[in-house]
Amino acid sequence: MQQAASSVEPGIIIGVLLVIKMYIIAIITGQARLRKKAFANPEDALRHGGLQFHREDPYVERCRRAHINDMENILPFLFLGAIYSMTGPSLAVARLHFLVFFVGRVLHSVAYLCALRAPTRSLAYTVAQIPCISMALQILTLVAAYA
Amino acid sequence: MQQAASSVEPGIIIGVLLVIKMYIIAIITGQARLRKKAFANPEDALRHGGLQFHREDPYVERCRRAHINDMENILPFLFLGAIYSMTGPSLAVARLHFLVFFVGRVLHSVAYLCALRAPTRSLAYTVAQIPCISMALQILTLVAAYA
Amino acid sequence: MQQAASSVEPGIIIGVLLVIKMYIIAIITGQARLRKKAFANPEDALRHGGLQFHREDPYVERCRRAHINDMENILPFLFLGAIYSMTGPSLAVARLHFLVFFVGRVLHSVAYLCALRAPTRSLAYTVAQIPCISMALQILTLVAAYA
Repeated sequence: MQQAASSVEPGIIIGVLLVIKMYIIAIITGQARLRKKAFANPEDALRHGGLQFHREDPYVERCRRAHINDMENILPFLFLGAIYSMTGPSLAVARLHFLVFFVGRVLHSVAYLCALRAPTRSLAYTVAQIPCISMALQILTLVAAYA
Repeated sequence: MQQAASSVEPGIIIGVLLVIKMYIIAIITGQARLRKKAFANPEDALRHGGLQFHREDPYVERCRRAHINDMENILPFLFLGAIYSMTGPSLAVARLHFLVFFVGRVLHSVAYLCALRAPTRSLAYTVAQIPCISMALQILTLVAAYA
Repeated sequence: MQQAASSVEPGIIIGVLLVIKMYIIAIITGQARLRKKAFANPEDALRHGGLQFHREDPYVERCRRAHINDMENILPFLFLGAIYSMTGPSLAVARLHFLVFFVGRVLHSVAYLCALRAPTRSLAYTVAQIPCISMALQILTLVAAYA
């Protein structure tokens, strides 16, 4: 943070909050495995009642898909957001990008875990992608001018 | 980009292009789900014709594997490439590293999605790993000298 | 590395070592696929004896789960660790964070691949999460003060 403040800080806050959101999905998955008695590994099943609990459960699989979708989208955002922040965008515009992504991804998680009616989840996904595409194009435009 | 240009810019361009490549695989997966009528979630199936379309499809699963393989390789590259760029490598050598990775990963995606004859995909994967291993070893050598 | 040394270097070393650890799991998975003759793609099975080897194997799936769990935890660490390093923590405290994460994740991989008795793996996972949560909270506290 030795750099001038501007748009780096909001990006960091949103990035860290979204990483925490991913950790929460991991915890929800673990709780679902215990509650549904559905373990991915025989050694876990053995500890929790027997090998018959080494099995899949639809809700646990749903949590897994939500988590993997987060990795597909939040992890690239951490990269795009960091680079974008360093290109010196206006603070208001940068905040808008980060906020739209944040709201989109939180809504995506809620829609996934609560199995909200389609296309809520896909809509949240698409909304969150817009600032990502926007940041990617802005970075390419700016860096291409330097190269 | 307030830093001296050198090898940071090509790394950023390649990184952003590969993130866009991952987004494209996500779009291809979504299109395949609609075309094959194979949805991972019952709520999506219900919206597109009924619960019988809550099912797996070999091509959709192929797209999923391509995407996950990208995450396993492109996401660590974003980290390695960023650190490596900051170690002040020669521009030509850095460009070679990034270019080999880029070509390898694009070929990997094409080989995966088109199910090209083995070992095309594995070869592309291996070629792309070479600059990653090289960057990792150069970073360790350089940083170990500081520590 | 033009910055003052301090806590950035240990973070880089640990980050690169953990990326290499992930690459090693990919190699172990590939070797298991060849040894167990269990290929995710028909084109790979065809090259190694026939379509009957386009099948799943419990050990290969275990390797896959270990790799995906690494992505869920090590990739966010690369982000958290980088930001945290730049907040200027004391070198000793930063080293402790990185070391606990490193030991936890290496033990997690060993516990996963060797199917050690539960709850060894879950314990290693939890231990590795502690420095991550700690870094996330420290970053939020510090950045909130700037914003």
